[in-house]
Amino acid sequence: MNANKIPDIIIGRLPIYLRALQRMADKGVQTTSSQELGERVGISAAQIRKDISQFGEFGKQGTGYRISFLIDKLREIMKIDRIWDVAVVGAGDMGHALARYPGFVNRGFHIAMVFDSDQAKVGQQIGDFVVQDTNSMIDAIEAAGIKVAMLTVPASAAQEVTDMLVKAGIKAILNYAPISLNVPENVRVQHIDPATHLQRMTYYL
Amino acid sequence: MNANKIPDIIIGRLPIYLRALQRMADKGVQTTSSQELGERVGISAAQIRKDISQFGEFGKQGTGYRISFLIDKLREIMKIDRIWDVAVVGAGDMGHALARYPGFVNRGFHIAMVFDSDQAKVGQQIGDFVVQDTNSMIDAIEAAGIKVAMLTVPASAAQEVTDMLVKAGIKAILNYAPISLNVPENVRVQHIDPATHLQRMTYYL
Repeated sequence: MNANKIPDIIIGRLPIYLRALQRMADKGVQTTSSQELGERVGISAAQIRKDISQFGEFGKQGTGYRISFLIDKLREIMKIDRIWDVAVVGAGDMGHALARYPGFVNRGFHIAMVFDSDQAKVGQQIGDFVVQDTNSMIDAIEAAGIKVAMLTVPASAAQEVTDMLVKAGIKAILNYAPISLNVPENVRVQHIDPATHLQRMTYYL
Repeated sequence: MNANKIPDIIIGRLPIYLRALQRMADKGVQTTSSQELGERVGISAAQIRKDISQFGEFGKQGTGYRISFLIDKLREIMKIDRIWDVAVVGAGDMGHALARYPGFVNRGFHIAMVFDSDQAKVGQQIGDFVVQDTNSMIDAIEAAGIKVAMLTVPASAAQEVTDMLVKAGIKAILNYAPISLNVPENVRVQHIDPATHLQRMTYYL
């Protein structure tokens, strides 16, 4: 296994496989096939076998995949066999929603800090968090060794805040602002964008 | 072009291409290559050429793609050369964020209605919208002919509300609740899930 050689597009599909497998496991299903998994995620069985085989031989001809084993392997590959602390920057509607989102549990992430530059919001309680001042963000993130951030500030502030996050040592940013961010090569950005998701469905209408 | 034959996975990549092309167009760029587009979206040039060629011959050997033309074609293919009215169900943090999200403009969607079952929220103003009672949702959506909904209710209510949306004639649901929904075959669901997006990045950390 040579991590550098695996295309981004394959890495991008692993979380989709994992989510489907996790849901099968939650229902008590113990084994699956690339065929069955494929039907659940809308990807061909051949593609799934090819993707998964990049990392080793995790399935058996004829018997398919043992779900718990494949889940463990995928979590290990994606490095979510540990918990990543996450900083949320922007305590608006979206920041509130994320700070209270129940969907991070058991999936590798834990919201650790929430920041905002608005003095009216600093000190506010959101769920388990007290909103901290963006002014102290670089030091706080650096001191805590946090590598992952979710950015929910307005588009107009997004690049400036991103530069601060990079300075603080953040290496992965989930960007909710509807603009593209400039980051150094060693920092990853994923854009989360409801319009893109909606556009995947209108084709079929 | 035979619409039924194009794999979901290809359709799923078109919005990503469109967003990158739109950003190039916004910067005044007029032409691009599959190579350049590929670098922007993290997909190989060969894959991009193959995906786009499913729908016709939109590029020229040697000169690449004319961006405005390709944007128009992609919008037509995805049926976002029109505006789809969208119902938001759930006026919590996420519903608020979506009702005010600036990223739908010029991308094929317009929030038309916001619903909640909480009587304390019904009648509230969110941006341009007055929150309507979920009790009247089926009639209101049906009367307006709305086909697209975004679901931001708690997981515990998500299936029940989905059944109502299906009854109201909704054919595409963007699901923010961290559970999988049961829908008839002619209804599409896209799950939007920050954990999945984060998992795409931790691999590289």
